[in-house]
Amino acid sequence: MIQASIITIGDELLIGQVIDTNSPWMSQELNKAGIRVARRVAVGDVWDEIWAALDEEQKYADIILITGGLGPTADDITKPLLCKYFGGNMIVDEGARQNVINIFTKLNRPIIERNLSQAEVPDNCKVIPNKRGTAPGMWFTKPLQTSPVASEVSVNAKKVFVSMPGVPQEMKGMMEDDVVPMLQAAFQCPVIIHKTLLTAGVGESFLADLIKDFEEALPKHIKLAYLPNYGMVRLRLSATGYDGPAIEKEIVQYFETLQSLVKDYLVTNEDEPLEKVVGKLLVAKNKTLCTAESCTGGYIAHLLTSIPGSSEFYDGSVISYSYKAKEDLLQVDHTILESKGAVSEEIVTQMAKAALKNIGSNYVIAVSGIMGPGGGMPDKPVGTVWVALGNEQKIVTQKLFFRFDRIRNIQLTASTALNLLRKFILEG
Amino acid sequence: MIQASIITIGDELLIGQVIDTNSPWMSQELNKAGIRVARRVAVGDVWDEIWAALDEEQKYADIILITGGLGPTADDITKPLLCKYFGGNMIVDEGARQNVINIFTKLNRPIIERNLSQAEVPDNCKVIPNKRGTAPGMWFTKPLQTSPVASEVSVNAKKVFVSMPGVPQEMKGMMEDDVVPMLQAAFQCPVIIHKTLLTAGVGESFLADLIKDFEEALPKHIKLAYLPNYGMVRLRLSATGYDGPAIEKEIVQYFETLQSLVKDYLVTNEDEPLEKVVGKLLVAKNKTLCTAESCTGGYIAHLLTSIPGSSEFYDGSVISYSYKAKEDLLQVDHTILESKGAVSEEIVTQMAKAALKNIGSNYVIAVSGIMGPGGGMPDKPVGTVWVALGNEQKIVTQKLFFRFDRIRNIQLTASTALNLLRKFILEG
Repeated sequence: MIQASIITIGDELLIGQVIDTNSPWMSQELNKAGIRVARRVAVGDVWDEIWAALDEEQKYADIILITGGLGPTADDITKPLLCKYFGGNMIVDEGARQNVINIFTKLNRPIIERNLSQAEVPDNCKVIPNKRGTAPGMWFTKPLQTSPVASEVSVNAKKVFVSMPGVPQEMKGMMEDDVVPMLQAAFQCPVIIHKTLLTAGVGESFLADLIKDFEEALPKHIKLAYLPNYGMVRLRLSATGYDGPAIEKEIVQYFETLQSLVKDYLVTNEDEPLEKVVGKLLVAKNKTLCTAESCTGGYIAHLLTSIPGSSEFYDGSVISYSYKAKEDLLQVDHTILESKGAVSEEIVTQMAKAALKNIGSNYVIAVSGIMGPGGGMPDKPVGTVWVALGNEQKIVTQKLFFRFDRIRNIQLTASTALNLLRKFILEG
Repeated sequence: MIQASIITIGDELLIGQVIDTNSPWMSQELNKAGIRVARRVAVGDVWDEIWAALDEEQKYADIILITGGLGPTADDITKPLLCKYFGGNMIVDEGARQNVINIFTKLNRPIIERNLSQAEVPDNCKVIPNKRGTAPGMWFTKPLQTSPVASEVSVNAKKVFVSMPGVPQEMKGMMEDDVVPMLQAAFQCPVIIHKTLLTAGVGESFLADLIKDFEEALPKHIKLAYLPNYGMVRLRLSATGYDGPAIEKEIVQYFETLQSLVKDYLVTNEDEPLEKVVGKLLVAKNKTLCTAESCTGGYIAHLLTSIPGSSEFYDGSVISYSYKAKEDLLQVDHTILESKGAVSEEIVTQMAKAALKNIGSNYVIAVSGIMGPGGGMPDKPVGTVWVALGNEQKIVTQKLFFRFDRIRNIQLTASTALNLLRKFILEG
């Protein structure tokens, strides 16, 4: 099977100032194209270390994809390094030069020398146009060397190195428009099919015991993985082979068996987040949802509205962070707020009822809690949350408790509340 | 300088199903401790590939930190592999066994064999207790071999390998409680100091030209990096040395020069997000903010409430996703909504005024736009946004346009609106 390695270049990755979201996206695209990502390596803006990574990764991979280090500033050394590595000379690429001029003309900004230098490329690479920025991509081909680990199926007597900008939308456009189709034309790639389901309310070990026999009986070309996340566990089956329809048929059967084994905990049999499951459920029933959020501060609304077309099932939210907002926007009872506190069953129930009435949706979720690090009290420690949810006929409440940091407490509150609503709608 | 390499293990990283947030966090902690992260490598749950990564990374690093692959399921092969790699035998660690029992007793869950196997460790490692989960950490020491790249200052005749669970809060607790102090005791580490500032409203190339002379005159042990993000650019100075106070004094001087050079675009001279800058500004003036969000669907509220103590400066929000919510919660004029549409200067101004009145804050941000992929119109294409912001005395409006995907359009709308508010407050 064709193997790829992704090299990301930039000190910002190594000092932890930036989270790498490019590599996961690239990995997904390569997988869909039948290319396995064997390794991902991050190195700094250091000549010798980038050079060593280029030497190293071709031992493991047929395709080496490089992102970052192509900007117009002095810490970006990737282009001269690649030029030297492949023994070329720098020339100006007319297409890339015109692209820089077009972009600056469109933005109505003056062009400085530094910008035009973006159009210089090594003369021994194929230039990949950048429709979204000034730095072009570069495609280098190298005859095959003997390799200890890389693909046995080497009908392809070459290694390919592709350098792309690190700016996400530029890299993504380049991958979709040119790089992936060029790789598929250059290599003979198998089919990889993933099937993922999401479970809730059950631990990883229990799941593993539940499906032990199934897992042990899997053929070698089908793999099972456990992906725990936010108190839920995703299970992923991956099948690899050259006969697409046969592989598809086979994995579908295994996937059906797996679903029936975990049916009591199954949230969805698609690789989709919980908020999308809730959204689809609402759309199918032609119902809408609103929220009243205190401690999650809009995070539930953000999850729901991240889904394209969410206005079909989501009406809006009242984020009542202050006491005053709770009283003015959600008509919460002042005396109960004073006597029971904002984090109480009474208040969260009042919030839910008021949101339902004011916004006029079919379903509602309301949350109030203490996310930390401050704000804890002896009887209500950090991590205490009250959830109320339901519809006009019935509001149910639940007390939750999380022991993590602020961001994770917010995320867990949101996913738990959404899953409780999902069950409520299904039982309804 | 002491060099570290981080190996993350797990197929989920290589197929792009999970974003690695562990490595950035670990990198930050190691940096603070004076340890440079030279490389980060991700490999799959494949015996030979993990083995090769262990062989490889010790060529570049003195310290090899490994996360992942320690779970109780069959795809987790790290522990037996490490046992074999360092030539040990598996034994039961009594402390780890008691820890598993305590956790399950506390959770009131039955213990199965699979859980107890978490207490088995190689007999040639130092066991690192896991206070937040069942899988213990493991510390292996290996005598030094000759190495082509690793640290010259090798007063330490050893390589250290540390294996930790991939669950973020377990890894973080282990790093803070044990691993970082143990590494500092085992190696002689220099001081690394970073100073970061944030600019807005200026491109990377222009900045680079503006500070060209400054950058060229920097001594070798001080590095400058450009970190573009959401239409803003962060600049980071990093100084390395063994004389802590001298290094600190030196970088402070360079950092002051840098700030004066970019003063027209300076947002903050600390490594903090824009929403925190806005929050601090509000707290300093003893004012509060509310929002009325349509297209950002709660994302601005989420950014603001992610900051601990945000209730000091943030009152709440009305997320009026549907027309009905705009009319009921924000008293938006029905005829204008019909004639001008929700994405218009008139409507966003009405939203701002109503939120200010209903929530009773000092400042307000209101946004309405089309984030895509659907919903575009000939006169209002996807990416069109109207922002209104201000206070009781004055509301200002601005039309924005973004050309990216839904999530990025939401993020850019939020950061642009927050920066506009920051300027509005400062201009008084």
